[in-house]
Amino acid sequence: MGRLINDGYDVVEEMLEGYTKVHSDYVRFSEESDRVIVSKVMSEEPRVRIILGGGAGHEPMFLGYVGKDFADAAVIGNVNTSPSPEPCYISVKEVDSGKGCLYLYGNYAGDVLNFDMGAEMAADEGIRVESVSVKDDVYSSTNFEDRRGVAGDLIVFKTAAAAAAKGYDLDKVVQLTEKANRNTFSLGVALSSATLPVTGEAIFEMNEGDMEVGMGLHGEPGIERKKLKPANEVIDEILNHLLERSPIKEGDETLVMINGLGSLPLMDQYICYRRVDQVLEEKGIIIDRSLVGNYATSMDMIGMSVTLVKLDNELRELLAASCDTPYFKQ
Amino acid sequence: MGRLINDGYDVVEEMLEGYTKVHSDYVRFSEESDRVIVSKVMSEEPRVRIILGGGAGHEPMFLGYVGKDFADAAVIGNVNTSPSPEPCYISVKEVDSGKGCLYLYGNYAGDVLNFDMGAEMAADEGIRVESVSVKDDVYSSTNFEDRRGVAGDLIVFKTAAAAAAKGYDLDKVVQLTEKANRNTFSLGVALSSATLPVTGEAIFEMNEGDMEVGMGLHGEPGIERKKLKPANEVIDEILNHLLERSPIKEGDETLVMINGLGSLPLMDQYICYRRVDQVLEEKGIIIDRSLVGNYATSMDMIGMSVTLVKLDNELRELLAASCDTPYFKQ
Repeated sequence: MGRLINDGYDVVEEMLEGYTKVHSDYVRFSEESDRVIVSKVMSEEPRVRIILGGGAGHEPMFLGYVGKDFADAAVIGNVNTSPSPEPCYISVKEVDSGKGCLYLYGNYAGDVLNFDMGAEMAADEGIRVESVSVKDDVYSSTNFEDRRGVAGDLIVFKTAAAAAAKGYDLDKVVQLTEKANRNTFSLGVALSSATLPVTGEAIFEMNEGDMEVGMGLHGEPGIERKKLKPANEVIDEILNHLLERSPIKEGDETLVMINGLGSLPLMDQYICYRRVDQVLEEKGIIIDRSLVGNYATSMDMIGMSVTLVKLDNELRELLAASCDTPYFKQ
Repeated sequence: MGRLINDGYDVVEEMLEGYTKVHSDYVRFSEESDRVIVSKVMSEEPRVRIILGGGAGHEPMFLGYVGKDFADAAVIGNVNTSPSPEPCYISVKEVDSGKGCLYLYGNYAGDVLNFDMGAEMAADEGIRVESVSVKDDVYSSTNFEDRRGVAGDLIVFKTAAAAAAKGYDLDKVVQLTEKANRNTFSLGVALSSATLPVTGEAIFEMNEGDMEVGMGLHGEPGIERKKLKPANEVIDEILNHLLERSPIKEGDETLVMINGLGSLPLMDQYICYRRVDQVLEEKGIIIDRSLVGNYATSMDMIGMSVTLVKLDNELRELLAASCDTPYFKQ
């Protein structure tokens, strides 16, 4: 694998500098922190503000969803590392309009700790900040509270943003966001490690021709490592696990997302989607909507995940609400 | 490198089946050919119809730009292989509204031959079809007519579609499309080969840690193969070649596109953009607009290209015109 960067220690600053120049219609840097990206197209009416964050290296995840009627700010850490509390706090000061803010991030210990500290700093100034950590990776734990957040981040974030855009208060936004969180189930497969910018080396070793179902976004161990199989068999295995660990059953309406982890061609992602569609149709599970593409990556990791969202009328409507950001427009 | 597919001979059919299911709001298969994707949101008023095409393996290129006020159809060949004349002809029958059609493709011998034959078959039925082949790869020849088409396809296609959407006749659409073609200049760098689905192997050998500036979308030879350098130095070298082989000079207004070839992280693409921005600012060349992302890939090739478009008021307006397709919305 190869990367096209300068000093590996400068990747986040240089990326953010490039990003804010390209998308200057949508975003700006906070004047207080070069790790806080703020929407320039934020609603003028007071609303619950939506703040996303986490480590860099998942692009377009986090910063790509800051814009109109989606996230109001994103807080970006180093590669695969939570942002520190200070920028989390600064992001609140940048966007709060008196209705409170909601932090949204994947459920990783570092993010929980640092965003919690940011929320405490904001509370000291009388600003209420709630947090929802996304927990969609069904293999990471049998206990919901211990699950990691992976591609389902997008689903939970979008639900929260749409609820905020409807003018709901912070309690109601949190309640709807948690509903999306509990109804979103993901499982991925990796064929390679990402390349770490600082070392130029793989984060972990993986033989060519191997795969690991259940691997996390940062290379967290999955179910077992074995020889790569044809796409249809891989999808069948993923769906078996997903349906076993979710309440989704015949007659349910779902949103399906295929998320590419960075280096898996779109061609392969649509081939994977085709099989998901076949299997769910056989099982009488209804696909109301589908998304395919690189929504939350692990830089140049080869792999993908399948996310199933159990829809009801409320979630369907929130997920379909219009928004306009560099990486999500509808 | 690894791919997640079934039989390598079935990748195009399976991908198109998945694609048309996911994006059924935008596209359908032609009833006459499973290699012709037709817009379901085509303008109802008679217009010049825009038909894109070429080999598969460049996704989202070609099919991803079929939708509203962009392409009306796409004709898809096998991987890295032109479609045959029959589907080219069928696409015309599907979309013509009496104002004629424009075929748009990269300048490769197979595409020229097969689309020309499709146009002759249409002419036999009294339908006028013109063709513009994109020629933006400045290193591929010093002679404009012999240049290959790479990421600049997007620029030329968008210009044509916007001109058709304004209701211009076929002659005027062709004239504006050729103007975009002559004002678009690209040069890329590759760090690896793509993996061919049928063999599961690289199309050509490349040592890890090497790069080749000027390599084509299918691995056509570039300027020289040498050790990978830091991103800023690579961009400086690309811009030196690009500016030497284009008329762009101080005071000119440009559109800049960084196109990822498939497996280069967005992080790296924005780091590359940052340097392009710095260098053009130093040289007094104005960036009016910029695009960064995977617009025309070579499946899982690691690499990127820089495209500079010399703008005038007419091109700026056409490139900014609104459109709505799965992979290009504005």
